[in-house]
Amino acid sequence: MTQNTAEKTPVTLLGLGAMGTALARTWLAAGHPLTVWNRTPARAAALATEGARIAESAAAAVAANHLIIVCLLDDASVEEALAGTDLAGRDLVNLTTSTPAQARARAEWARQRGARYLDGGIMAVPPMIGVPEAGGYVFYSGSPELFERHRETLAVPAGTTYVGEDASFAALHDVALLSAMYGMFAGAAHAFALIRKEDIDPAALAPLLADWLVAMAPAVHQTADQLRSGDYTKGVVSTLAMQVAGTPTFLNTAEQQGVSPELLTPYFELMRRRLAEGSGEEDLTGVIDLLVR
Amino acid sequence: MTQNTAEKTPVTLLGLGAMGTALARTWLAAGHPLTVWNRTPARAAALATEGARIAESAAAAVAANHLIIVCLLDDASVEEALAGTDLAGRDLVNLTTSTPAQARARAEWARQRGARYLDGGIMAVPPMIGVPEAGGYVFYSGSPELFERHRETLAVPAGTTYVGEDASFAALHDVALLSAMYGMFAGAAHAFALIRKEDIDPAALAPLLADWLVAMAPAVHQTADQLRSGDYTKGVVSTLAMQVAGTPTFLNTAEQQGVSPELLTPYFELMRRRLAEGSGEEDLTGVIDLLVR
Repeated sequence: MTQNTAEKTPVTLLGLGAMGTALARTWLAAGHPLTVWNRTPARAAALATEGARIAESAAAAVAANHLIIVCLLDDASVEEALAGTDLAGRDLVNLTTSTPAQARARAEWARQRGARYLDGGIMAVPPMIGVPEAGGYVFYSGSPELFERHRETLAVPAGTTYVGEDASFAALHDVALLSAMYGMFAGAAHAFALIRKEDIDPAALAPLLADWLVAMAPAVHQTADQLRSGDYTKGVVSTLAMQVAGTPTFLNTAEQQGVSPELLTPYFELMRRRLAEGSGEEDLTGVIDLLVR
Repeated sequence: MTQNTAEKTPVTLLGLGAMGTALARTWLAAGHPLTVWNRTPARAAALATEGARIAESAAAAVAANHLIIVCLLDDASVEEALAGTDLAGRDLVNLTTSTPAQARARAEWARQRGARYLDGGIMAVPPMIGVPEAGGYVFYSGSPELFERHRETLAVPAGTTYVGEDASFAALHDVALLSAMYGMFAGAAHAFALIRKEDIDPAALAPLLADWLVAMAPAVHQTADQLRSGDYTKGVVSTLAMQVAGTPTFLNTAEQQGVSPELLTPYFELMRRRLAEGSGEEDLTGVIDLLVR
C-alpha cells in the first residue's frame, strides 16, 4: 500500500531509547516524514534504514519541523538537549517522564522561548506502542490548541487522553495511576508470599487473584463519590470498624505463613488511626485525609 | 411458584449476623428446610416469619439436621457455640472467618468428634449473597466427599470454588485475595491523595484508575509464571533496575503534592533491596522472596 506522505504532518523526535524508538516506528509506518536525533547516534542509524532522516544535532532536528516530540531519560536531559535550539513558533510535545512540578516549569520555560507546549505521560511500555488492542494510551495536558491541531498525529502511537490546560496534570495522572498499580502489585506480592510454603500452584492462584482484583477495582467509583460529597459513610457496606476488627486475621495469617507484614501494615495503621478519630461507621475513604498534609 | 421442599436438603445454620442472615434467606427462598440458631434470639425471630425453624439451643439446632453450616463472629465463637453439641456423623461447614491455622485445627477438632469438615472463605459482602451477577463466591477446602455431597446446597447463596483437601486452604486463599485487595486500595488511596489539592474531580480520576488497575491486574499471570520457573527475568519488559530508577518521580511527586509516601515506600524499599542483591535485570517478582522468612 502506497501512503501519501505529503498529507501527513512531519514529526521531529528527540530521544531514541526503547520508548522513543517504538514511537518513531509507528510514525514511519503511518507515513509521517520523521526527523530523529539521539545523543548516541547509533540508535538513529538503525531507524534511517526504515526511512527516518537523521539530524546532526538537536538544533537541526528542531529546525527541521514544526512539531517537536521529546522523549528523553528525564527532565534534565530535556534541558540539556534543547539548550541550543530555537523553539520560537514550534509546537513542543514533551513525553519525557517528569514530576508535575517539572512539567509545569518546563511549560513556562517553553512559553518564554515562544513555543506552544503539551506535556505527556505515557501509560504503556514500549511493546504496547502501535498496538491499539494492548490498551496503552498517553495522558496529555497543556496547550489545548496544540492538542487539537496535532491530535491525529499524536494518536498514531497510542490512544490520547487530554486532562486539562495545566501542563502538570498529565504527569500527575500518570504518577497517580502508576502509584495505584504499585500498591496493587505490592498486595499481589503479599498474596503470592502467603502461599509460598504450601502445595499451591502460583499459576492456580493467579487467575483467582486477577479476577478478584478486577472485580474490586470499581470500588474506586464509590471512593470518588464519597470524596465529592464529603460523606464517607455513603453506601458503606463493610464499615471501617468492621474492617479494622478483621485485620488480626490478616496479620496472624502472615505470621503463620512466615511472611513479613510490611506491605500491609502501613495501610492497616492508617485505618486504625482513622478509627481512633471516631470514624468507625465510615468506609475506608478517610485514610486519604490522613495521607494529605 | 410452589417449590418441592421435600427434595431439598435440610440445613441448620448457626449464626445470624449480617452474613448469616443473608445466607439464610437464600436457602429459604430456594425451598430448603432451614433450622437456625443465634446467640441473640431476636435475629432468629425475624427469620421465623420467613419460614425458618428456631432452635432453642445450638445443640438442638445441630441435632435437627445432618448438614450444619456455621457462620459466627470468629473461631472462638465456634468453639463456644459447638461446645455442648453432638457432631457425630454430621457434615460441618464452617464459614466463620478464620486464619489457616485456626481452620486446620478446627478440622482436626471436628474429626475427633466424628464429623466431616469443610472450611469456607466467603469472597463477598452480604449484599452480594444470592445475587449471582454480583460475582461473589466461597472458597471451600477440606472433605471432598462433603463438598461433592452438598455442592448444590452450598451453591445456593454464592458460587463455589473448591481449593483442596487441606482444610486451611480456603482461609489462605481468602486472606491472600483480600490482602491483595487492601494493597490495591492503598495504592488507590495514594492516587486520590495526590490530586486532593488540584482542580481535578475525583469522579473523573476514578474511571481512569479503575480501567488502569483492571488492565494491569493480569500481570499476576506473568508473576506466577516466573515463580513456577524460578526465572524472574522471563518476559520482563520494565526491569527492576529501570523501575527503581523511576521511583524518585513517585516520591518527589508525593512530596510536591503534600502527600505522605508511607503507602508506597515499603514496596519501593523492597525493590531497592532486591536490586542491591544484583537482580537488576529481573522483573519485580524477587520482592516476594524478600517477604518470606
